[in-house]
Amino acid sequence: MPFVWCNGRLIAQSEARIAVSDRGFTLADGVFETLRAAGNRPLWFADHLARLRAGAECLGLSVPYDDSAIEAAVTSLLTNHGHAASAVRITLTRGPTSQRGLWSSDNPGYPTLLITAAAAGQLPPQHLVICRATRRNEYSPLSGIKSLNYGDNILARREAVAKGATDALMLNTKGEVACATVGNIFVRIGGRWLTPQLASGILPGLARAKIIPRIAASEIKLTEPDLVRADAAFISNSLGCTAIASLEGRPLQGSLPDLPIYE
Amino acid sequence: MPFVWCNGRLIAQSEARIAVSDRGFTLADGVFETLRAAGNRPLWFADHLARLRAGAECLGLSVPYDDSAIEAAVTSLLTNHGHAASAVRITLTRGPTSQRGLWSSDNPGYPTLLITAAAAGQLPPQHLVICRATRRNEYSPLSGIKSLNYGDNILARREAVAKGATDALMLNTKGEVACATVGNIFVRIGGRWLTPQLASGILPGLARAKIIPRIAASEIKLTEPDLVRADAAFISNSLGCTAIASLEGRPLQGSLPDLPIYE
Repeated sequence: MPFVWCNGRLIAQSEARIAVSDRGFTLADGVFETLRAAGNRPLWFADHLARLRAGAECLGLSVPYDDSAIEAAVTSLLTNHGHAASAVRITLTRGPTSQRGLWSSDNPGYPTLLITAAAAGQLPPQHLVICRATRRNEYSPLSGIKSLNYGDNILARREAVAKGATDALMLNTKGEVACATVGNIFVRIGGRWLTPQLASGILPGLARAKIIPRIAASEIKLTEPDLVRADAAFISNSLGCTAIASLEGRPLQGSLPDLPIYE
Repeated sequence: MPFVWCNGRLIAQSEARIAVSDRGFTLADGVFETLRAAGNRPLWFADHLARLRAGAECLGLSVPYDDSAIEAAVTSLLTNHGHAASAVRITLTRGPTSQRGLWSSDNPGYPTLLITAAAAGQLPPQHLVICRATRRNEYSPLSGIKSLNYGDNILARREAVAKGATDALMLNTKGEVACATVGNIFVRIGGRWLTPQLASGILPGLARAKIIPRIAASEIKLTEPDLVRADAAFISNSLGCTAIASLEGRPLQGSLPDLPIYE
């Protein structure tokens, strides 16, 4: 039976519940992190917590525990209910409110902090199409934090599946290549690795930051015409790298560079 | 004690709970409607349900009840636990999932349908600033439906409060005026009422649609320079119209046109 850690308690997932007035549920008023863990050891924990706190600061959320308490919570969950390799999700929301509506300055409330763990798997090479249904909003600070607002990514993934692909590349409102639906993107063109610049409206991925120096990747304004010249590509996120087998129906070299960063 | 209607049951709000894996909570994978009700009679019910279904269709959500069952649920909630005038919220999400991640095509699950009711109030005239922190994404279908993805609106409202105002006008990525954080906007310039066109990335407000013919408003590409010439303005949503007392610190005529549509 899966367990979760919710606001200080380790409980069965079936017993854990979110209040119907939780602003994470009603208005996507929150942030999250997804971490990889080996046994009970979360990878890049300090980096993830720093990003969680940066996202919380952006939305004006308070984080109700210090880092060591959150790490202890993650370790406790993993020790008792983890997997050999886990995908840990830490979700922070503004919590339940007694008032309806978008905002109430006199409503501090109490945040919700939820930690879950699932078995981490390795995705097969992905078949990508370029999302035409929606665009990533590089004008929104939400594009630079891991907020709960995943609606556009869901639309992009739905479009990919409807087209017989497995994932989508999202463009920003200017038409620049931004990212896949759950990870950053790297493409190889003329023997060099390239990845979209932060200004294109992407999440500053932790794996991305570690990969860039390893493969001497350049951060650029990547355009759709550039993609036609790519001969290899992969998606990175904190859970791992995933090769891209094809892009818009064109096969790519499906192998990954050697990236021993997830250890 | 407030009651809610949740997936077929009328229960105390304190007992109603959302599963921690509900995709409305984890990924903002859902839509909602806010309705005005007089006694136990919801206003514009068919219009709201049509928009809820259009939003659900956009996200590929199924609506687990027919309109008459949802109306019966709303009426039951209002009859037993409503107010003289209520703000009713109907929230529909993709529901709990047994799988982590953005998408799983083999995971139909069961949607969550939640109905809540609070006392409807009348807001005082609002002081608006133009939001500079974020932009509304007119390229996203989410801008045209009432999805749970309210993060940008929350950022805009936070900016307004930080500037000593009460609400913000949001621009789209092209810089066109779009809407306030919880309603459409009408401005009077040279004796004519104007409102942003749908193509500017706004929600097709039900009140907006009813107001346009009443005051012979024109739907236009409204720009920021236009606003300097406005002498009156108001915000509309399904709960009512709210006068705008000032815009970027400049006082406006704070009265509303006569709009007996909320009856």
